[in-house]
Amino acid sequence: MADSLDPRTGLPVVAMVGGGQLSRMTHQAAIALGQSLRVLAADPAESAAQVVADLQLGDHRDLHALRRLADGATVLTFDHEHVPTEHLHALEAEGHRVAPGPQALVHAQDKLVLRRALSETGEPQPAWTEAHTVHEVTGFADEVGWPVVLKTPRGGYDGRGVFVVHGPDEVADLLERHGTLLVEERVAMVRELSAQVARSPFGQVAVWPVVETVQRDGVCAEVLAPAPGLGDELASAAQELAVRIADRLGVVGMLAVELFQTAEGVLVNELAMRPHNSGHWTIEGARTSQFEQHLRAVLDYPLGSTAMTAPVVVMANVLGGAAAAGDWAGPPLDERVHHFMAHWPDVKVHWYGKAQRSGRKLGHVTALGDDLDEVRARAVAAARYLADGVVDPAFAFEQEH
Amino acid sequence: MADSLDPRTGLPVVAMVGGGQLSRMTHQAAIALGQSLRVLAADPAESAAQVVADLQLGDHRDLHALRRLADGATVLTFDHEHVPTEHLHALEAEGHRVAPGPQALVHAQDKLVLRRALSETGEPQPAWTEAHTVHEVTGFADEVGWPVVLKTPRGGYDGRGVFVVHGPDEVADLLERHGTLLVEERVAMVRELSAQVARSPFGQVAVWPVVETVQRDGVCAEVLAPAPGLGDELASAAQELAVRIADRLGVVGMLAVELFQTAEGVLVNELAMRPHNSGHWTIEGARTSQFEQHLRAVLDYPLGSTAMTAPVVVMANVLGGAAAAGDWAGPPLDERVHHFMAHWPDVKVHWYGKAQRSGRKLGHVTALGDDLDEVRARAVAAARYLADGVVDPAFAFEQEH
Repeated sequence: MADSLDPRTGLPVVAMVGGGQLSRMTHQAAIALGQSLRVLAADPAESAAQVVADLQLGDHRDLHALRRLADGATVLTFDHEHVPTEHLHALEAEGHRVAPGPQALVHAQDKLVLRRALSETGEPQPAWTEAHTVHEVTGFADEVGWPVVLKTPRGGYDGRGVFVVHGPDEVADLLERHGTLLVEERVAMVRELSAQVARSPFGQVAVWPVVETVQRDGVCAEVLAPAPGLGDELASAAQELAVRIADRLGVVGMLAVELFQTAEGVLVNELAMRPHNSGHWTIEGARTSQFEQHLRAVLDYPLGSTAMTAPVVVMANVLGGAAAAGDWAGPPLDERVHHFMAHWPDVKVHWYGKAQRSGRKLGHVTALGDDLDEVRARAVAAARYLADGVVDPAFAFEQEH
Repeated sequence: MADSLDPRTGLPVVAMVGGGQLSRMTHQAAIALGQSLRVLAADPAESAAQVVADLQLGDHRDLHALRRLADGATVLTFDHEHVPTEHLHALEAEGHRVAPGPQALVHAQDKLVLRRALSETGEPQPAWTEAHTVHEVTGFADEVGWPVVLKTPRGGYDGRGVFVVHGPDEVADLLERHGTLLVEERVAMVRELSAQVARSPFGQVAVWPVVETVQRDGVCAEVLAPAPGLGDELASAAQELAVRIADRLGVVGMLAVELFQTAEGVLVNELAMRPHNSGHWTIEGARTSQFEQHLRAVLDYPLGSTAMTAPVVVMANVLGGAAAAGDWAGPPLDERVHHFMAHWPDVKVHWYGKAQRSGRKLGHVTALGDDLDEVRARAVAAARYLADGVVDPAFAFEQEH
C-alpha cells in the first residue's frame, strides 16, 4: 500500500488534498513525470478539479474522504494546511505515507507551535508570547512597545487572522472571539523575504535563491528573484536558516520560510509546507520548478537543479480588480488575454480557472530578463492589465521614478 | 457555437483529436492558459487520456464522435493526421472551426498532394513521380538512378510506408499491396532538418530556430537546436521556406517542415500540421513552447516569443529498449527514474505514460547549455539510461572521439 505504483505506467501516484491552483500547477509537473495527480476537491469547479483526470470530491476534514484518497496512492500531500492533524496521524497509523508528516506540518498549521519550536532552537524570530487574557497582552506590549500584532494560532492566511492592535481597548474583544492568541512585537521591517527549500525523506535538500515578496493589502502582489541587493552573506544565512528548519522539523516536500528583513538580519514570520506563491517564478525561472520539486521530494526522488534560467525573474499575481467587481465595462477576460499576448509576447501567464472576484488570486504572470526595473515593470503592467484591462496610471508614474 | 467559451472561466475550449503524447503535452500548456484540453481518445489508457479532465472516448474516423467533440468547443484541432478529410469538411459546413482546415491538412495527410502543391510553386523538393505501374517506376528510376524511394501517399509515419527499392523486382509487389505510390529520387543528403512555424488565422507567423533531427531506424532519436553549423543564410532560407508553405497552404496552428539538407541546400521531405517531435525541445528551450503556440495559433491569439532560453538545447527520445522487450533483468522503470534524477539533476524528463514496448517513444529528455558536445552527451546518455538502465558502451566510446 505504501509503495503503490500505477499499474499502467509503473510510476508513482501522488494524492493531493485540495483543489486550488497549487494542485493545478502540481498536476502540470506530474504529467511530465509520467504521473497523473490524484486530487481531493470540494467542488468540481475548483481550480485543479477542472484539469485533472483523477478527481475525488470530498471534504478535507472528513477522514473517510482522506482514506479513500490515500488508498492506492504512493504518498499523500497537500495544497493547503487545513487538514486536521489527528486525521493525518490516523492515516499514518494505517500505513499510508503522508508528506509532510503531521509532526512537521503542525508547525505550518499552528503559529504558536512554530514559535515554541523556534524558541527552543534559538532561531531568529519576533519577540512573542501566548496570551489568554488582556493582562498578558498589555504586559507584553508594555515591554516591547505598542502597537503589537495579535494572531490567531490557526486558520489565518493572506492577512486574515492578523490584527495590529494599538492599545488595550481592542484586545478583550479579540480574545473573546478567538480564545488563545499569539502576540508578537511589530517588527520594524525593511521588507519581506521568502526562502524556499525542498527536503526529501532521505534528507536531501535543495534551495532556490532567496526572493523578495511584495505585499499589497496583506496579499502577495509581486515576487522578485533573487531578492534585489540582499548580499551573499544574508542570502546564505537565510538559506541556511531554511535548511535548518526543514531538517529540524523533518519537513518532507516544499518548505517556504517567510521572513522579515530588519536592519539586523532576518526573522522568521511563518512557514508553508507546500508549493507557495513565493515560488511560482520557478516554473519558468528555475531549472526545476517548486511543483516538480515537491513531487520529487514527497516521492523521495533525488531533487532537481534549482539554478535560475535568467539573472532576474519577476512574478506578479493577477488579482481580481474592478473588472471582477462588476462595476466596469471594459473588455471581457478573453479579449484582455488577446491584448496581453500581443503586448507582452515573452511574459508567461498562468490562469487558475477561477471565477473573477475582487482581490482574488486569479492567476499570475512571469517575466525574465537582465534588468530588474525593466523586468518588474513588464510583469506588473501585464498583471494589472490582465486584472482590469487598464494600465494603472499610478503604476506608470511610479515606474518613471 | 464557433466562438464558445467555457462559462466557468470565460476562456476558450480547444478540442483535440487523438490521445497521444502530443495531446498530453498540449494539455499542460492549456492549463497555464486557463483552459482544460478536451481530448478524443480511443482508449482511457492512452497517453493524454490518463491526465485530462475532459475526455471523450471514440474513434477519430467516426463523424458522430467528432461532432460530439466539437460541440461547445471553440476550435477543433489534432494530434495526428488520420482524420478523414471529408469529415472535416462536414464539420466546417456545420459551423465548427477546424484548425488546420481540411484544405491545408490534406498536404500533411497525402504526400502526393503535397508534392503537387510544392511543384506548382517551385519549392525545392526531391525529383518525384506518381506511379501506378512497374513501368512508371522503372522509367523514373532510369532517369534519376537506382535506388529510388517508394512511399504510400497516406498513413505512413516513423519510417512506415517508406521503401527503398534497388531494382524493378521489388516494385510489382509493393504496387499490388499499396496501389498508387509516390516515387522519389533517393536524395544524397547531408542530414535532416526541421523548420517549425506557427501561423494564426489572422496571418501572424512565428518561427523557431531550425533544428537538426537525428534519426535511428527511421525514428527520430535526437533533436539539436539550433542545427549545428547551419549558417545564417541557409537557416533563414529554411525558415522563409516554412513560412511560405504555411502561408500558401493556409496552415493554422503548428507546421513542421521536415527537410533534407544536401550539398546544394534544402529539399522538403514532408509536413506535419501539429506539434511535432522536432519541437519538444521548446518546452524548456524556448520562451514559448510549440504546445502553447499551437493553442495560441488555433485560437487566433497573438503568438508568443520563440527566443531560445539557452545557446544549445538537445532533446533525446526515450525509445523502448531491451527493458521493454522483457528479456532483461535490470532495474524497473521507477528505479531507473531515481538514478536518472540523481545523475542528471538538470536534465528534464517528459514521460508519456505508455506501457513499455521495444522501439516505442516512451518519453523524452531535454538538456540545455553552452557546449553542443557536452549537452548532447548528457541528453543522449540520460535517454538511453532511462530506456534500459544501462549506459550504452558504444555511445560512451563515440563520445570520446
